[in-house]
Amino acid sequence: MKEYLFTIEMETRDYECDIQGIVNNANYQHYLEATRHKWLQQEGFSFSQWHEQGLDMVVSEITMKYKVPLHGQEVFLSCLNLYREGPRFIFEQDIYRKSDMKLCVAATVSTVAMVNGRLSRGEEVAKLFSKYFQP
Amino acid sequence: MKEYLFTIEMETRDYECDIQGIVNNANYQHYLEATRHKWLQQEGFSFSQWHEQGLDMVVSEITMKYKVPLHGQEVFLSCLNLYREGPRFIFEQDIYRKSDMKLCVAATVSTVAMVNGRLSRGEEVAKLFSKYFQP
Amino acid sequence: MKEYLFTIEMETRDYECDIQGIVNNANYQHYLEATRHKWLQQEGFSFSQWHEQGLDMVVSEITMKYKVPLHGQEVFLSCLNLYREGPRFIFEQDIYRKSDMKLCVAATVSTVAMVNGRLSRGEEVAKLFSKYFQP
Amino acid sequence: MKEYLFTIEMETRDYECDIQGIVNNANYQHYLEATRHKWLQQEGFSFSQWHEQGLDMVVSEITMKYKVPLHGQEVFLSCLNLYREGPRFIFEQDIYRKSDMKLCVAATVSTVAMVNGRLSRGEEVAKLFSKYFQP
Repeated sequence: MKEYLFTIEMETRDYECDIQGIVNNANYQHYLEATRHKWLQQEGFSFSQWHEQGLDMVVSEITMKYKVPLHGQEVFLSCLNLYREGPRFIFEQDIYRKSDMKLCVAATVSTVAMVNGRLSRGEEVAKLFSKYFQP
Repeated sequence: MKEYLFTIEMETRDYECDIQGIVNNANYQHYLEATRHKWLQQEGFSFSQWHEQGLDMVVSEITMKYKVPLHGQEVFLSCLNLYREGPRFIFEQDIYRKSDMKLCVAATVSTVAMVNGRLSRGEEVAKLFSKYFQP
Repeated sequence: MKEYLFTIEMETRDYECDIQGIVNNANYQHYLEATRHKWLQQEGFSFSQWHEQGLDMVVSEITMKYKVPLHGQEVFLSCLNLYREGPRFIFEQDIYRKSDMKLCVAATVSTVAMVNGRLSRGEEVAKLFSKYFQP
Repeated sequence: MKEYLFTIEMETRDYECDIQGIVNNANYQHYLEATRHKWLQQEGFSFSQWHEQGLDMVVSEITMKYKVPLHGQEVFLSCLNLYREGPRFIFEQDIYRKSDMKLCVAATVSTVAMVNGRLSRGEEVAKLFSKYFQP
């Protein structure tokens, strides 16, 4: 397994599965969001505090590659790394099935900062996140 | 079929179904909420405007009887009536499968009004809703 | 706090919250289902195995009382007890906010057994569940 | 607006919105899936029939660009085109806000065919879909 900035163990729930008995594709996006928010929480960042200060992070683009499907009540590891590319803060996020560490989903989530409702060049967020960037 | 104050035609989506191929129980609660909001919208009521004036409607209790399951991409009718019982505004909500008008879900949704964050005796809302009450 | 047959710690996710910043009502039903399934899993019961043997448990009625709302990324305890009333197996399910043990949702979930697609008097399930029934 | 093979009018629901009052990112993926399924239904294709014949279509990769957010109870048009690239059947899917025809989400959804559980070169599906391919 690659090295990651943050890894969290999660478990699928039966209601997230569809008629084929596998997790519906859109629910992985929920897992990815929950993982980013848990990382932010762990690092002491607060969306609501940022929002009050006029700073919002929004997802501008997401790419998800589906490799191996998860089933109901399956434990998985959700991992993330963080990069900066100009105004974009890019989360590389991978989901592994815990039982055999097979890669299930590989995602790239591009986010941008809005400052007082306008697209930012990212300098404010870069200061907050700088120590986390992968080279 | 009984008479209703409001009826809307909706359709299930495949992602709302679980592994048994039927709509997951919790999703009917989404349909019920969407139906109430469509009725409010049709009558010209606005949650957000109410909220700015310090008035919020919240669900205090819900009872749902599951009769016949819906499958993916099935059309249904979602119907509601409205009653008042003291401080409570009660939506009687029924869901019928359109193809044979079988009753699928029969629900009772009790709501109360919060005025400036405190439970209200309902006089403000009763004025707004009075013409809709079933005897 | 009352005594319960089973208690599990869970955490809300931000995407489960609506515009008011509190968990959308329908999502509590998801939590309740996930709790029942975790209990069944812990006790070694398998829905899919039951299904292959022609036995299905279905929810026939649910009542939920909403007391105190949960917010995003809040930890809660989800607890259940089990009773039998003739053909019905009734899960009493309560959700408590962990930080102050306030009761958030009190639910009663009635389930019935279908054997080979027909409503059962519950004798098969009663044998499996008998040691769990509350008096 | 570009030309599309299929366009359907849909409406957001309040429970699909998050705390910012805009539709949660993952829900657009639900809209995209529902759109593909409606198109398949309109053309007389049946997933379940395919499945019985050993043919399954699965999403292998999705890219979504988020341009303009939708709010609660907003009407939108969901449009799709279809291309073939070797074994992959690619749905180009765009979502427009109806009120001003602003592009909200631009997505590319790659699907592949599994025949009897094995990745197919796509010949079976190409026959079914050939008349729909964009040049």
